[in-house]
Parts: sequence; structure tokens; C-alpha cells
Amino acid sequence: MQRYKSIISYDGSGFSGYQVQPKKRTVQSELEAVLAKMHKGEPIKVSASGRTDAGVHAKGQVIHFDSDLPISEDKWEIALNSLLPEDIAVLSVIKVDSSFHARFDAKGKEYHYVLQLSNKRDPFQRHFAYQYSYELNVEAMKEASLSLIGTHDFTSFCSARTDVEDRIRTIEKIDFLQEGEFLTLRFVGNGFLYNMVRILTGTLLEVGNGKRMPVEMAEILAKKDRRFAGKTAPAQGLYLWKVFY
Amino acid sequence: MQRYKSIISYDGSGFSGYQVQPKKRTVQSELEAVLAKMHKGEPIKVSASGRTDAGVHAKGQVIHFDSDLPISEDKWEIALNSLLPEDIAVLSVIKVDSSFHARFDAKGKEYHYVLQLSNKRDPFQRHFAYQYSYELNVEAMKEASLSLIGTHDFTSFCSARTDVEDRIRTIEKIDFLQEGEFLTLRFVGNGFLYNMVRILTGTLLEVGNGKRMPVEMAEILAKKDRRFAGKTAPAQGLYLWKVFY
Repeated sequence: MQRYKSIISYDGSGFSGYQVQPKKRTVQSELEAVLAKMHKGEPIKVSASGRTDAGVHAKGQVIHFDSDLPISEDKWEIALNSLLPEDIAVLSVIKVDSSFHARFDAKGKEYHYVLQLSNKRDPFQRHFAYQYSYELNVEAMKEASLSLIGTHDFTSFCSARTDVEDRIRTIEKIDFLQEGEFLTLRFVGNGFLYNMVRILTGTLLEVGNGKRMPVEMAEILAKKDRRFAGKTAPAQGLYLWKVFY
Repeated sequence: MQRYKSIISYDGSGFSGYQVQPKKRTVQSELEAVLAKMHKGEPIKVSASGRTDAGVHAKGQVIHFDSDLPISEDKWEIALNSLLPEDIAVLSVIKVDSSFHARFDAKGKEYHYVLQLSNKRDPFQRHFAYQYSYELNVEAMKEASLSLIGTHDFTSFCSARTDVEDRIRTIEKIDFLQEGEFLTLRFVGNGFLYNMVRILTGTLLEVGNGKRMPVEMAEILAKKDRRFAGKTAPAQGLYLWKVFY
């Protein structure tokens, strides 16, 4: 038996998220269906670095699976891409030690949240960015983001529906990249709680539009209560960009 | 009765083209359904600058229609956008003289054909660019394109299924824009025949990959026979960018 690590990308718009759910089209179920087909019906379990929600995209999700098929790394990539639907792409497949685990070995992650600052409706970006048509004070957002850098209890910025008990995470950096009408918020950290990037973004937007002051971010963190943070920004702007090992 | 000119944009991936067809989802049928709803069921005919095929996009398609509803230009834009599906956007609506005709008054058009030069599958561009994974000699393509500039009989670059008898058109310019892994071919001319931009692009690609010499373009034009030109490039790379009046 050989373990494989694979980097995949997907357009999340057509999926009910990453994880298998009964009767839903998910990324994991498509991957497992293709692997089962390659293994004559034998079920092959795919493990990912973490889930993504419905509508959330991935540019560099990482998965692992085991197989005893005698296929080279390059051929794995070609075989999987030829069988997978067009909204999932396998970017690489490499052999790894059987101790490797896509989720437990992840040391950090990078997420991008893409905002389209425009008041003109754009049919081409509706699944790929969050269109924001109000004025934004990006300098105020940058100032607010500084309070988030470092190691904190992020309970306030985590969906109340989470089961995870340890809500302490470290955010290494939050960058703001402006390119034309697109503003991308780049988050790098050792791990992110359920909905954390979307709630951070939604709260930073409330600073940007003047509803909140930059200084409030530290206060919200200290409350350790989801109700004090801002709205959860919509799924379609979010990309799991990279997983670090 | 007032005539309105409107600039619209649409993501062509979900449509069986622009023009009404029985039992198919088309851009025109969506527009006419919304206008009929606004006029209490009265059918309102929409005329466009020209058709686009299934999968072909528009950034600046132009339409006209007549209405006696007492609505301001701005309110028309808001009302139409609120009723139209998300893959069509109305960018502007202005009052025009009743003699204006979106098709007959068009003086020229600009089309873009977007190529993604990459051998990595990209789930995000599958509907929005033609992925081309072979080496391309762009200089040879530019040289070949020079033979196309000016007034010519474009029968060789027109679908054999066309009814149009006059195949003489003027191409004002063909530009090549490279940005990262994207190469965009920009065509400006007084009019384009059925499939003309896609056949021109497909033939230029055959020059770019060395299958043909640049000098062959003039020979193909002279043949006035579709069979001598190259393949029709796929629909998803094509954008009707602008219509000139």
C-alpha cells in the first residue's frame, strides 16, 4: 500500500462543500467515486487538510489517500483529471510516507477573500468574488487587522455551531492587495476555526464602511462571544489558497 | 411609445446562445420574459446588435426595445437587474429616437478571444477561456494577422451554414494582448460573419503552433472556401466586447 499526497483545486460553486453528505454533490464524494472506479469498486477514503463550505473555492487544497495500484505520480495526475468533473483539478500527486496525514500534519494555511469593489453588476464574478458597492476605508481595515495578528482566543470570530474546544489560533499576517476593482484579503495562520476567515472579513468590512472603529477589534476578541463580531461574509469570495506542512 | 437602448453583459455558459429557441434557455427569452412581466404579460420584442452562440459571452451587447411605461433611465436599469437572472447584467439604459435600431445602426464591433496558455487544468477558467497547452509563436500569429486587416471577402472564415450573401467585411485591427498566462486576441471591424472570429482564431492558432505559415492567410482568403481555413476555436473563449454606433 502506498500513500499519496495530492494538491487539488476546485470551483466551489457547484458543490455542497468539500465533505461527503448524503445525496449532495461534494468534492470528497466526487474524488472517492473516481478512486473507487479506478479500484474496481473498492472504496478508497480521501482525507483532506480540512473542510470547505458550500460555494467556497480551493486553489491549493491538500488530500491524501492510499492505493496499491502500480501507477507513477505523473500518471496518477493524468488519470484522476481524465475521470474527475471539470470543476475539480488535480494539480499534483506525489508519493509520501504512510505516516503523512493531510489534516494532522498541516502546519498552517493561507486563505484569500476576494472583494469586488463596484456598483455595477458583473455576471462573470458572481461566483468568484463578493461584490461590495459601498465606500471602504482600507487604511482603517489595515489598522483593525493589526489587533488580530498573533496568538489569540478567536471564539468571537468562530461560528457558534463549532464543536472545537480549543479556539486559540495564531494569525501570522493579514495582507491587503488591491488590483483594479478587486481587493483581496490574504490571511496566513497556523489554523482557522469554522467560518473564521469569513467572520473576520465581515467584521473588517464593518470597520471599512465606518460602522465600527479599528480599536473595536481588540474588544471583540476579548469578549470571546460570536455575537460581538460582524456578519459572516458570503462564501463565494473565499479561497483556500495553500496548506503548509 | 419610447425606444430604449441598453448595454448588457452576460456569462454565456448557461445559455443556448442569445436568440430565442423553443424550449431552450436563451438571453433573449430571459430579457423578453422580464419585460413581459413588467408590462402585465404584454409581449415586448427585444432586438440585439446580433446573435451570440451557446457559450459565447458578452461584455457589451447592445439591445433595443419599446415601452410606454413611465420609468426613468436609471430606474429601468435597477428594475431590469432586480428581475433578471444573475448571469445577465444590464449596464445602462438610455432613451433613444424611435429610428434607432441595435442591429441595423451598428457601425462596427469589437470581439475578444481569450486563450489561457497553460498545461495545468484550471477549474476557474473552464467557461471563460480556451486553454491551450502547446507552444505558440505569437510573432508568427501577429505576422499572419496582418493579411487579414482591411477589406476582404471572408467566405473562407465563415461558417458554411451561413445564409448571408455578402461576405465582404473590413477588419480594422487585430491586437494581441499578453497578460500572465492569458493571451487575448482583440478584433475590431465593421462586422463579422457567422463564426468568423472563432475561425480566424482557430486558423491563427494553427500558424502559432507551426502547422501553417503566416503567408498562408492570404492564400486562404483568396480561396473563398471554408474548407481551407483552420478549426473553429471553442465558444467559451469568445466575448462580444463592444458595439460601435
